[in-house]
Amino acid sequence: MTAQNDRKYLEQAIALAKQGVKEGAGGPFGCVIVRDGQVVGRGWNQVTSSNDPTAHAEVVAIRDACRNLGNYQLTDCDVYTSCEPCPMCLGALYWARPRRVVYACTREEAAEAGFDDAFIYLEINIPPGDRKIPFYHAALDEAAAVFRSWKEKGDKKLY
Amino acid sequence: MTAQNDRKYLEQAIALAKQGVKEGAGGPFGCVIVRDGQVVGRGWNQVTSSNDPTAHAEVVAIRDACRNLGNYQLTDCDVYTSCEPCPMCLGALYWARPRRVVYACTREEAAEAGFDDAFIYLEINIPPGDRKIPFYHAALDEAAAVFRSWKEKGDKKLY
Repeated sequence: MTAQNDRKYLEQAIALAKQGVKEGAGGPFGCVIVRDGQVVGRGWNQVTSSNDPTAHAEVVAIRDACRNLGNYQLTDCDVYTSCEPCPMCLGALYWARPRRVVYACTREEAAEAGFDDAFIYLEINIPPGDRKIPFYHAALDEAAAVFRSWKEKGDKKLY
Repeated sequence: MTAQNDRKYLEQAIALAKQGVKEGAGGPFGCVIVRDGQVVGRGWNQVTSSNDPTAHAEVVAIRDACRNLGNYQLTDCDVYTSCEPCPMCLGALYWARPRRVVYACTREEAAEAGFDDAFIYLEINIPPGDRKIPFYHAALDEAAAVFRSWKEKGDKKLY
C-alpha cells in the first residue's frame, strides 16, 4: 500500500463525509474499506436521518463490507476514515479485525467541531460508577453460569 | 428504580443471552432497555449469525429501542446487560445517552470466557500507531475543511 493510494482512499472517505452532510444524513464523517485494491465497503454518518446513534461512518462501512464479503471479519482490509474513530468505532474495528486504519482529522478536531469523541475517550478510564453515565455492577450467579455453559459448549462459532 | 426491579430486568437480559446461544445467534450476551417501567428495546449477540461484528447485545438493543421510540437518544432510559459493555458498546451507550447502565458479569469474566473486551480496553490507551491494529494519522486539508463547513452550517441537526 503506497502513500499515494492512502491519499486516494482518504479522499474518497472525505467525499462521502461531504455528500452525507449535503444530503442531511448526519454528521460530517465518511469511511471506505479496501481489500486487494478494491473498495469493499462504504459508510457515512446517518445518526440523525436513521434514528440510530450507532450509525457512524465506520460502523456503517464495517457492516457494508461484512455484508459484501459474507464474513464477520475484515481480514487483510484497510480502513480509511475522514476522522479518528471514536471509542465505539475503535471497538467495532477491533471486533472486525482489519489490517490497519488510516484517519485524517483527530479526536481533538472532532471535539472542536462539537462532537463527544474526546469526552468519551476520557470517560472510559473513569471507574464505572463515577462516570457521567453511571455503570453499576450487580453480580448474579445466573449470568456467570451463562459464561460457564459457553466455555463448555462444543459446537460454538468463535469471533 | 428499586434493586428488585434491577434484578428483574437483569434476569431478562440474561434470559436473552441464554436464548441467543441456544438458537446459534452468537455469543452469550443479552440486553434490555427500560423506560418508565416498560421494556422499550431488546438485544442479544448476533455477530456470527448475521455476519455483523457490531451486532453485540447492547448495540442491537440500542438500535431496537431507538427504532421503537423514533429517536436517536435514549433519554431517561435504563440499560440492563448481562455483561459489562465492551468499548464499542460503551461508546454506543454514550452516543445514545441513557440515564444509567446496570451489568452482571465483568470484562474480566468475559475475557475468561474467551472474549476480547478487556484486551480492547487496554489497546485504547496505547498510542494509535503502536496498537496491535495500527491507526495512522494522515492530516489532510480537505478533511479539516469538512469540519469547518459543519461548524458554519446553520440548519444542522446535532447529536
